[in-house]
Amino acid sequence: MPEPTPGAPRQVPVPSGDLLDRGFTIWFTGLSGAGKSTLSTALGAELRARGRRVEILDGDVVRTNLSKGLGFSREDRDTNVRRIAFVCHLLSRNGVVAISAAISPYAAARREARELIGDFVEVYVRCPLPELVRRDVKGLYAKALRGEIAHFTGVSDPYEEPEDPDIVVDSSAETVDVSVQRILGHLKARGYVMPGAGIGGRPGGDDRTR
Amino acid sequence: MPEPTPGAPRQVPVPSGDLLDRGFTIWFTGLSGAGKSTLSTALGAELRARGRRVEILDGDVVRTNLSKGLGFSREDRDTNVRRIAFVCHLLSRNGVVAISAAISPYAAARREARELIGDFVEVYVRCPLPELVRRDVKGLYAKALRGEIAHFTGVSDPYEEPEDPDIVVDSSAETVDVSVQRILGHLKARGYVMPGAGIGGRPGGDDRTR
Repeated sequence: MPEPTPGAPRQVPVPSGDLLDRGFTIWFTGLSGAGKSTLSTALGAELRARGRRVEILDGDVVRTNLSKGLGFSREDRDTNVRRIAFVCHLLSRNGVVAISAAISPYAAARREARELIGDFVEVYVRCPLPELVRRDVKGLYAKALRGEIAHFTGVSDPYEEPEDPDIVVDSSAETVDVSVQRILGHLKARGYVMPGAGIGGRPGGDDRTR
Repeated sequence: MPEPTPGAPRQVPVPSGDLLDRGFTIWFTGLSGAGKSTLSTALGAELRARGRRVEILDGDVVRTNLSKGLGFSREDRDTNVRRIAFVCHLLSRNGVVAISAAISPYAAARREARELIGDFVEVYVRCPLPELVRRDVKGLYAKALRGEIAHFTGVSDPYEEPEDPDIVVDSSAETVDVSVQRILGHLKARGYVMPGAGIGGRPGGDDRTR
């Protein structure tokens, strides 16, 4: 961290530089279509604007690159989540902000991810099922409700709601922007992001190496 | 990078700061027992001493965390290598030195990894089969030669020697230390490591943020 300018008033308590340079994992969980990917992209952009390195492990990307061949049984879903957690762990411990946007329906698997990673922020993206059915961007809920998709989370497969998530956002009741600001607020309170600032709240990454 | 002290002579051509802060992947390839893991550990330590962040993706670690359930058919080996490459890619593009120590017997899969990652240094760890059979630390070569292990690379499964690796080291003819120094020499020539220095050849990572 740069030394404070002599004589300049320190307006806010500044978290230790260790934390501001430290990687962590944002673990979104929620039903298909609830908004995990959209929030990941928007939050990722905000964090990059603050000079952080960010990787988004979206559900589809992961299914292609880490978990091809796995299905949607509990065992396969747990394996999928374990692989994502392993990669988030490697990234986080090297200073990167890893964002997972997989459904991750089982509480035990999420707990295991939290234990492995340590610097872990669980964000439950809540959205009532009727609203998801109304949106149904990919037409999957209609199919699932007609019984045409086995193991469809929330319809024909379980989703265990987080009992004690770090943050809950409700995509049926608040805009993406509001949700992102609330998540940033939590990150500031935890010391992962510089407090008291919007974009530019911390120097860009390039500046640190000059 | 820090600005040079005014008036101080520049003794060596300094590669661009971009490269010195840039992640890359060291991709070891070679038969079981040739020394990939040993070299990974030794090289990793040297790079950490130069302030680099390093992750080693050892064959066993990967089989446990990314590829459980995969076997040793060509298809499964290719899938395994693709997953390692995906993770090395994520790490490298975030400034980390990723070191892969999997056998990776097929040239096409290694080429695919190189294309994906870009900043890629292929190190062929050569060791003649008779020497590997003589060492046989895990007793696997004896078993394979008795026909008790199907798909054992170099005995009952193919190994495609690299035709144009960035570096070849021969663990039957040189010490670990010599091999590591030769790899470091190559990295210096490519601009990934500060030239003209042993340990401490570049400032530690912490210094860069002060």
